[in-house]
Amino acid sequence: MGNKSLITSPSFFIGKGGGELISFGSGQPDLPPPAETFAVLKDYQEFKYGPVPGQPALREALVPVCPGSNPDQFVITNGGSEAIDLALRAIAVPGGKVLLPRPYYYSYPHNVRLAGMTPVYYDLADGKIVLGELEAKLAGVRAIMVNSPSNPTGTLQAPATLKAIEALAHRLGVYIIADNVYRELVYEGEFYQLAGPKVITIDSFSKTYSMCGYRVGYVHAYDQAVIDRIVEMKTHTSMNTNILAQEMALAALRSPRAYIDEHLQIWRQRRDRIYAGMRELGLDLWQPEGAFYVFPKFDNPNQAVNELYYDHGLIAYDGSWFGAPDRVRFSYALDLDKIEEGLGRLGEYLKSR
Amino acid sequence: MGNKSLITSPSFFIGKGGGELISFGSGQPDLPPPAETFAVLKDYQEFKYGPVPGQPALREALVPVCPGSNPDQFVITNGGSEAIDLALRAIAVPGGKVLLPRPYYYSYPHNVRLAGMTPVYYDLADGKIVLGELEAKLAGVRAIMVNSPSNPTGTLQAPATLKAIEALAHRLGVYIIADNVYRELVYEGEFYQLAGPKVITIDSFSKTYSMCGYRVGYVHAYDQAVIDRIVEMKTHTSMNTNILAQEMALAALRSPRAYIDEHLQIWRQRRDRIYAGMRELGLDLWQPEGAFYVFPKFDNPNQAVNELYYDHGLIAYDGSWFGAPDRVRFSYALDLDKIEEGLGRLGEYLKSR
Repeated sequence: MGNKSLITSPSFFIGKGGGELISFGSGQPDLPPPAETFAVLKDYQEFKYGPVPGQPALREALVPVCPGSNPDQFVITNGGSEAIDLALRAIAVPGGKVLLPRPYYYSYPHNVRLAGMTPVYYDLADGKIVLGELEAKLAGVRAIMVNSPSNPTGTLQAPATLKAIEALAHRLGVYIIADNVYRELVYEGEFYQLAGPKVITIDSFSKTYSMCGYRVGYVHAYDQAVIDRIVEMKTHTSMNTNILAQEMALAALRSPRAYIDEHLQIWRQRRDRIYAGMRELGLDLWQPEGAFYVFPKFDNPNQAVNELYYDHGLIAYDGSWFGAPDRVRFSYALDLDKIEEGLGRLGEYLKSR
Repeated sequence: MGNKSLITSPSFFIGKGGGELISFGSGQPDLPPPAETFAVLKDYQEFKYGPVPGQPALREALVPVCPGSNPDQFVITNGGSEAIDLALRAIAVPGGKVLLPRPYYYSYPHNVRLAGMTPVYYDLADGKIVLGELEAKLAGVRAIMVNSPSNPTGTLQAPATLKAIEALAHRLGVYIIADNVYRELVYEGEFYQLAGPKVITIDSFSKTYSMCGYRVGYVHAYDQAVIDRIVEMKTHTSMNTNILAQEMALAALRSPRAYIDEHLQIWRQRRDRIYAGMRELGLDLWQPEGAFYVFPKFDNPNQAVNELYYDHGLIAYDGSWFGAPDRVRFSYALDLDKIEEGLGRLGEYLKSR
């Protein structure tokens, strides 16, 4: 590798992509948002502060997502990221621990520490929650994070498992933070929306409506004290989420359901191709049930990520960045031709080993 | 006051305004942004993540604001609020103290506590910094906040005073957080841009370009480690600031300087009218040098704020919310007719006392 710098985190790849590179790196849709979203821009003239919790019409429109909710239980945020940050800061207690799935979304441990708490982990088995493992670690924690469908594993948790967690958390008085940003990207099985007095839901318009750059997400909680605390914090830390982006999100939400259904078909084709292609290459991986990631095993993931990038022009993420030191994450948010080309390059790499 | 609820914070007034009410409450311009800002919307089609520090062209365009700076020293944020939140979190140390001016912008003490530090205060004399008072309290603090022109006092600090603070902070190794969001709204004296290795600048497009609802601000630091830490945090807590809002901010920045100059004339007329009107009513206040607030003395500010609202349809903010329990803040971000009407109502209230 000569004098090339060693790749040690996803931030290495910021600004890299395009040209001859094939990127299975960043997790963002390549397909555009619903046309209705851009139609909002035509005559838009507003410029004043909006309410800190978010535009009333948007919060109203979100009620059907969370069973038995009301608009005052929602806060529109700068993407799912701010929703997680504010939720954790709202429930933070000195010395508090937050139980994270492992493998985990890259930001979770950082978010927990930034809220002044300590991350602890429950290990997934081939991407699935093991209730005994989780129960053994649940006592004394402030909150448990659940992410289904999951980034980076691409797995979906069974409704029965999630219902059992609801009951456990309720009994122990532990918050559940349900990161549901991939809830509309499900290929196998049934998505289950966690609910109950201790459930805090994180969601986003980024993945479902391809609006990553606009940074619109939300947090919902049935516990009004949590929401009041989040609104109070957001008053000081960012105020309302961009008013125009909220109108665009509302337009997306009101656009025909066909948008989501048609996109899901495209995602499914991509999933089928990359999964089959990797199996043909002899890789050990499970079939993704949701989101847009495959997570095959590699002998030396960091070496693989470096060699794939420097020698084969292919971006993929070291699983150890997600708490899985024996795997590599490939995002398949790119068209079938590029997936094909990427599989070819991956094959060359594997042959060269 | 019967069964009317007592007004105890600015949040009481959220959603109140319009109709028969005259609001001297919220601090936001009523005049629209530059037309160039909305022109961006016509053909906009982008939707992907942007770089976490912000769009390169926008950071490049900001370089002239901070002497001797470069684009990599800027991070575009969700308004000045997120800039303050991230700056404080970036420099937070356990047990750290942050020295705030008193009177202070409403959010400062909250921002300091949310970053896990403790607010301490240096008292202004009629809105002006007293160097001896500040120096006596500077030792052992992590950072000092400077806000010139100031919300809520409307005062501007002299360049000589600010240069003395630069030297003091440099000698003691204390960060200066310069909140410059009103820097283009100066009627008397000369705005001075603090600079130096320990200076962290907070700025916003909200007041200068009337873009409050779009939430675009920035933080600049000469200390690259502070910026790196801010970018790392923002990667996990909100990612890029809305890409479209950044394009709008860039268009505003590139719009003819006449926009700012013409608006300043309008602000000056309003300032002159409300200052003269309050003097005629016998109130004790100083002439604002910048921003858009007057800050007269009142015998019982909370009672005044309550009676003005319930009995005279006039919104004003209790000075104690800003650390000044003997004053009331009036924002004059409204047209001359409304200022006139508001002065009339204020006169009725004063006569009724």
